[in-house]
Amino acid sequence: MQKFLMEKGFIFPTAEIYGGMAGFFDYGPLGTEIKRAVKELWWKTWVSGRQDIIGMDGSIITNPKVWESSGHLDIFHDPLVECSNCRGRFRADSLLEKKVKGQLDGLSLEDYAKLIEEYKVKCPVCGGKLGAPKWFGLMFRTEVGSVNGNTAYLRPETAQLIFVNFNRIVKTSRATLPFGIATMGRVFRNEISPRNFVFRCREFEQMELEYFFNPKQDCPSGLLESVADLKVPVLTREIQEAGSKAVKMPINALVKKKHTSSWHAYWLGKSLEFVMSLGLAPAKLRLRQHLEQELSHYSKDTWDIEYRYSFGWKELAGIADRTDYDLQQHAKASGVDLSVATPEGGKLYPHVIEPSFGVDRLVFAVVEGAYQVEKLPDGKQRQVMKLPEAVAPVQVAVFPLVSKDGMPEVGREIYNILRKKLRTFYDDKGSVGRRYRRQDSVGTPFCITVDGQTLKDRTVTVRERDSMKQTRVKIAEVAGWLERRTGG
Amino acid sequence: MQKFLMEKGFIFPTAEIYGGMAGFFDYGPLGTEIKRAVKELWWKTWVSGRQDIIGMDGSIITNPKVWESSGHLDIFHDPLVECSNCRGRFRADSLLEKKVKGQLDGLSLEDYAKLIEEYKVKCPVCGGKLGAPKWFGLMFRTEVGSVNGNTAYLRPETAQLIFVNFNRIVKTSRATLPFGIATMGRVFRNEISPRNFVFRCREFEQMELEYFFNPKQDCPSGLLESVADLKVPVLTREIQEAGSKAVKMPINALVKKKHTSSWHAYWLGKSLEFVMSLGLAPAKLRLRQHLEQELSHYSKDTWDIEYRYSFGWKELAGIADRTDYDLQQHAKASGVDLSVATPEGGKLYPHVIEPSFGVDRLVFAVVEGAYQVEKLPDGKQRQVMKLPEAVAPVQVAVFPLVSKDGMPEVGREIYNILRKKLRTFYDDKGSVGRRYRRQDSVGTPFCITVDGQTLKDRTVTVRERDSMKQTRVKIAEVAGWLERRTGG
Repeated sequence: MQKFLMEKGFIFPTAEIYGGMAGFFDYGPLGTEIKRAVKELWWKTWVSGRQDIIGMDGSIITNPKVWESSGHLDIFHDPLVECSNCRGRFRADSLLEKKVKGQLDGLSLEDYAKLIEEYKVKCPVCGGKLGAPKWFGLMFRTEVGSVNGNTAYLRPETAQLIFVNFNRIVKTSRATLPFGIATMGRVFRNEISPRNFVFRCREFEQMELEYFFNPKQDCPSGLLESVADLKVPVLTREIQEAGSKAVKMPINALVKKKHTSSWHAYWLGKSLEFVMSLGLAPAKLRLRQHLEQELSHYSKDTWDIEYRYSFGWKELAGIADRTDYDLQQHAKASGVDLSVATPEGGKLYPHVIEPSFGVDRLVFAVVEGAYQVEKLPDGKQRQVMKLPEAVAPVQVAVFPLVSKDGMPEVGREIYNILRKKLRTFYDDKGSVGRRYRRQDSVGTPFCITVDGQTLKDRTVTVRERDSMKQTRVKIAEVAGWLERRTGG
Repeated sequence: MQKFLMEKGFIFPTAEIYGGMAGFFDYGPLGTEIKRAVKELWWKTWVSGRQDIIGMDGSIITNPKVWESSGHLDIFHDPLVECSNCRGRFRADSLLEKKVKGQLDGLSLEDYAKLIEEYKVKCPVCGGKLGAPKWFGLMFRTEVGSVNGNTAYLRPETAQLIFVNFNRIVKTSRATLPFGIATMGRVFRNEISPRNFVFRCREFEQMELEYFFNPKQDCPSGLLESVADLKVPVLTREIQEAGSKAVKMPINALVKKKHTSSWHAYWLGKSLEFVMSLGLAPAKLRLRQHLEQELSHYSKDTWDIEYRYSFGWKELAGIADRTDYDLQQHAKASGVDLSVATPEGGKLYPHVIEPSFGVDRLVFAVVEGAYQVEKLPDGKQRQVMKLPEAVAPVQVAVFPLVSKDGMPEVGREIYNILRKKLRTFYDDKGSVGRRYRRQDSVGTPFCITVDGQTLKDRTVTVRERDSMKQTRVKIAEVAGWLERRTGG
């Protein structure tokens, strides 16, 4: 898949001509369009499309006190071990993952040391003895200003910018509970061993929502109803502790059986709904609740949406109950009151549910899930990416059958109309069969061909990627026809 | 203006509750929507809207060899002076700016030292003696990976990511000359003295296009014609050297009088056209050519679009002729051939024109230019932002006249229809007059009011921000009416 994505120019290591840089990637034209479309769909679904959520955009470098108060400076780290022989450095939890059953998050350095001894873990490179585990801080540091010693950090998450600007945003937007603040942007984590292509990298993009509510009030049943029947396999804490298999249950069962709170369940449902709208197959999705020791320092309860990548079940998104931890921490450290008035009167520190998505791993799941090598009726094969129209990098391609007889002119005319609303591509080179195959392989849902008949009756053929069916449509009607099909 | 923007929640210092951080800003809900709209319009105008330009998206941290080869590591710096008394640090060129006539870019450290002595420049804080000027590197540094010593840099421009991925992008997109590659994203410059709010900050967003062409071929006259008649005041190198005033001339005069190349003039025109589409007044725009000594190390010729901010004429965008400097440098350093085939046969290193926009300073110009305190016929005043529909953070607001009699229900019905295509806001609190004024002050071009008559005949009033004229429109027609007016 990685080779395919690189060859098609979707995603590749940054500055390949200099040998790249571990954990950093650049997006080519097609990858950029998919990523933009995923982000746009998220904003449209959760910000522009809702009355109760507003957007914000924070800076990557902010006052370092933010990370002191949030706890990241103390606690945001991974266990590092060094080989006493070759000096290679590795994450203790990654080395142990394949040997030890169960979750390895949330252990102490002593726990890791014990397990390394118990399981006789050696250096994976040279077989040498591993030294004692140490904490390795995941935040990138830099110096700001012309005077030395002004250490600042590259943000490891976008969420904190929402919390530290909370009072300014609430005041100016006159938001009343419950409401959400959403943001997206680059974040940085100095991973000891970045891996699985863009799944775990050092610079990536997040889309995060903080949804604030009165903890004494449940999610209104009208809201919950909208996602209540969504059904996926679920791994609750109890199921995992019992070593049992995931159980398929609907979202409202999570509330009824008290596995989680109503607001938490609602956002689990909305998050699932969102990833499904990107074309991810329900059969490759499941919900997994974090075990007690796995929880981040700020979280009371966290559930991951996991996706079955080619390299196993992995976290696609995390939906955390951060309670009022962050607002309380920042209020305490800054001395600023961050409570809000409730519609019922009185003030309180709202609690918050945070659905957090990694854009790059989402894009990776979308393209990996959409990619197929399909057998055709004539025995031949084709590469095809069955991307939903909303995120296809090219939504429609326009081809003159041959590059003469006035066909290119009509093709360009159609191209100029369509590109106002859709991501449109024009191509008049090579055989039309080859052009179809090229568009199939990058996920273009529709190809329009201008042929001899077009010149007679102003109709074109529209070929659909998945069925390969061709329909004749009048030029005058083709924009409307496609707009309906792409949810324009 | 800054106070207004902060109070309305457009833009404010990052993490204000901790005292902010010089040179870093966060965007609130309204500022975020304007910034998104400006970026979207740029992408729509220059990438989706053109057949000859494709997009890419690079990482902020890349292989440090990129900055070695590009010359940034050696040359991207400002002259720093330190006060021998209070140890304050200042940019030598900024201190000299007010005393010395003419351009101060491109001088040597010796030149700055001489000028400081000649003009008797002292420390602006304590009046102390200034030390010898030194170069101060503008790139932020960080360490990558778990082993010390892997220094990397935060990119100071997005453009280099285009050059270092050039061959991968050209191959996979099958682009043929002339063509452009466009990108946008955060960049970082460790300014010694950030100032003028978001005009000069340390973290900001760029939108950059690299347009590649065969240097032996002129811009086709058809392209040039499309912007030939655009006319703004121009400060050529000669005019500035003669100490004369700007001369109003059309874009094609720049070519005819050999002030610049045809490709350069074309992109000056397209860049002007773009900033004008954001509502910037032609009277506040001018073109200024860089003087010889001002040119960046990579540039043969650069023109700035300058805008008259409240704090003077300042660079809004730079349009540089980077020749084949960057591709040649990277080819030499990496050993990879970065030449491209020409349609006529043979291979060459294309030359490049780079229109480069700073998003934050563009947003600042747009809101500063749009803001007015207007006298009304009744003698009262109103604050109004005359933003073009395309970039207004709220494009249409929907108000039930009163919050009863079924008006909120009809209001929400209209809100739900409109928000699918437009940035729509719903408000049912307070007097309708106050709601109008609040929307005027944040630039909302249209307010729709549901009143008593609506309940009888399903019509609403649409109030236009600038004229304050109200028109009755059928609910069934209001979406189409607005879509036509907002260019949707």
